[in-house]
Amino acid sequence: MQHRYVKIIGTGKYLPQTCVTAEEIDARLGVRAGWTLKKTGVEKRYFAGEETASQMGAKAAAAALQAAGVSFRDIDCIVGASGTYQQPIPCNAALIQAEMGEGASGVPSFDINTTCLSFVAAMDIVSYMIEAGRYRTALLVTSEIASIGLDWEHKESAALFGDGAVAVVLSRSEHGGVSGIVHAAMETYGDGAHLSEIRGGGTKLHSRSAEATEKDFLFQMDGTGIFRMTSKLMPPFLERLMQEAGTSIGEMKLVIPHQASAMAVRLIMRKLGVGEHQLMDVSHNGGNMIAASIPMLLHEAIERQRIVRGDRVLLLGTSAGLSLGGLILDY
Amino acid sequence: MQHRYVKIIGTGKYLPQTCVTAEEIDARLGVRAGWTLKKTGVEKRYFAGEETASQMGAKAAAAALQAAGVSFRDIDCIVGASGTYQQPIPCNAALIQAEMGEGASGVPSFDINTTCLSFVAAMDIVSYMIEAGRYRTALLVTSEIASIGLDWEHKESAALFGDGAVAVVLSRSEHGGVSGIVHAAMETYGDGAHLSEIRGGGTKLHSRSAEATEKDFLFQMDGTGIFRMTSKLMPPFLERLMQEAGTSIGEMKLVIPHQASAMAVRLIMRKLGVGEHQLMDVSHNGGNMIAASIPMLLHEAIERQRIVRGDRVLLLGTSAGLSLGGLILDY
Repeated sequence: MQHRYVKIIGTGKYLPQTCVTAEEIDARLGVRAGWTLKKTGVEKRYFAGEETASQMGAKAAAAALQAAGVSFRDIDCIVGASGTYQQPIPCNAALIQAEMGEGASGVPSFDINTTCLSFVAAMDIVSYMIEAGRYRTALLVTSEIASIGLDWEHKESAALFGDGAVAVVLSRSEHGGVSGIVHAAMETYGDGAHLSEIRGGGTKLHSRSAEATEKDFLFQMDGTGIFRMTSKLMPPFLERLMQEAGTSIGEMKLVIPHQASAMAVRLIMRKLGVGEHQLMDVSHNGGNMIAASIPMLLHEAIERQRIVRGDRVLLLGTSAGLSLGGLILDY
Repeated sequence: MQHRYVKIIGTGKYLPQTCVTAEEIDARLGVRAGWTLKKTGVEKRYFAGEETASQMGAKAAAAALQAAGVSFRDIDCIVGASGTYQQPIPCNAALIQAEMGEGASGVPSFDINTTCLSFVAAMDIVSYMIEAGRYRTALLVTSEIASIGLDWEHKESAALFGDGAVAVVLSRSEHGGVSGIVHAAMETYGDGAHLSEIRGGGTKLHSRSAEATEKDFLFQMDGTGIFRMTSKLMPPFLERLMQEAGTSIGEMKLVIPHQASAMAVRLIMRKLGVGEHQLMDVSHNGGNMIAASIPMLLHEAIERQRIVRGDRVLLLGTSAGLSLGGLILDY
């Protein structure tokens, strides 16, 4: 157990203007009506049009500050916690700070990235800085535009994703209070590094490389390979997490899984012993938003009072890497 | 002061096979002989050919583990601390783990990015996790391939950069020992976010965008704008850092500046009251390696015994963002 006295004091979200239904995805993919909904469970998702990731992030951040009842002056650092980036240089957090109109503030801004687990990792990592008194209040911003990198010839993955942004204000909590991070763990298995990837656009295969193909710059995933690896690794990972935390699945008021694929999530959750009543219904929720999926569900759970102060919540997911991550939070 | 009991127990580097002299850069840029050396102070730099960033990082990591006298089994997490990435998904750290042949290890691997200050930020951030006992020993790996993103029509920036990788093994130190992080600070001014950037390749301007130009995918910088902003912000930043740390420039055995530009560094260091005897000579050192420049000089300083245990060192730099960062270390 590595308890940290931190508390989520506000959350906010932003969804792009354009809502795309499962039927519209069916049409775009050229599949029979109903295929997308049946295959993915995602009724609708949102696609960014003119919106940039930093604009989306700044809007989510403004909503989170308002929900927390604090102003930007109370923020000691901005953490960009996304699996995608707006541009290769500089980091997302600096662009979000500028977009918030706070470009003269000096507030330290940096990114933490582990693809779909970026938010969970950022919350975990930064909580140590808050606990130690380095920063009192952190603004975590996850803003993802998945839609631009989808391979529409790969139906299974193209149907899954949506865009969105979430921000969370994380602050120090009083010792002895009900709120805190109970425990967290992460494991990475680089053997699965190429099971989900975008190969091109970095230093290995330059954006304008003549040898590259269109597909090199689009998200590629081996769904079966990921499912196989995750099914094998997740149960012992979760068992260790619970054991080290001195708690159990049964004590979780809510389990928020990364919505990698709704079907896969249901299968794995059943295998892990998570009851239906402990799971957030994700079908209406905008699809796989990369690292924004988990905090988006957390935001919805707080908004709809599915959880109240002191309730124990498990954030659990997998990401490209391949990584597994879990964080047990007393909200 | 936010002292942390951490200790650098080993460092290692890797430089690409291809060494490129200032004269060769002169020829490539079509300038008169001597221009590059005079303008940048960089005698030679290394350009990656077939080498990938993760291969370079894995080699530096192996050297650092050897220097530390530990094996991979002693490593509790891998932190990718680069300003460039090998591919957009997954993160650098997972690719480095796989390249080390440790893809089945499960060792948590994530990236921390704030462009040129990524190493300093990563060391700062992760030290809190080490201090709290979450991880005992962390492997920080910075591996940069700048050469692929250079704009050869922009002589001033193309002449500055080189590729290279450095790894640092950071571990817990005994309380009361001489080693530790004394203090660290970072400030980000998003107003300068576009003074140095690569605009294309992320979600805003896709790698294969028809509207994009070649230059959108190459590093662009406004050297004068950066110098102006840095000259104004750095002196008060450094004064606050020293004051909060309860130390002074005079107490630094060594100051390791980010080699953004050798000339700019000399000017600013003089302004900051850093004596020649406190500065590492950087001219032979491979140019601006983005986030690898600072740990590369730290590695050289340790290798050549410019610093010994207990010596106080200041790591100081600026990065795209625009960010300023400083870390005071008792080696």
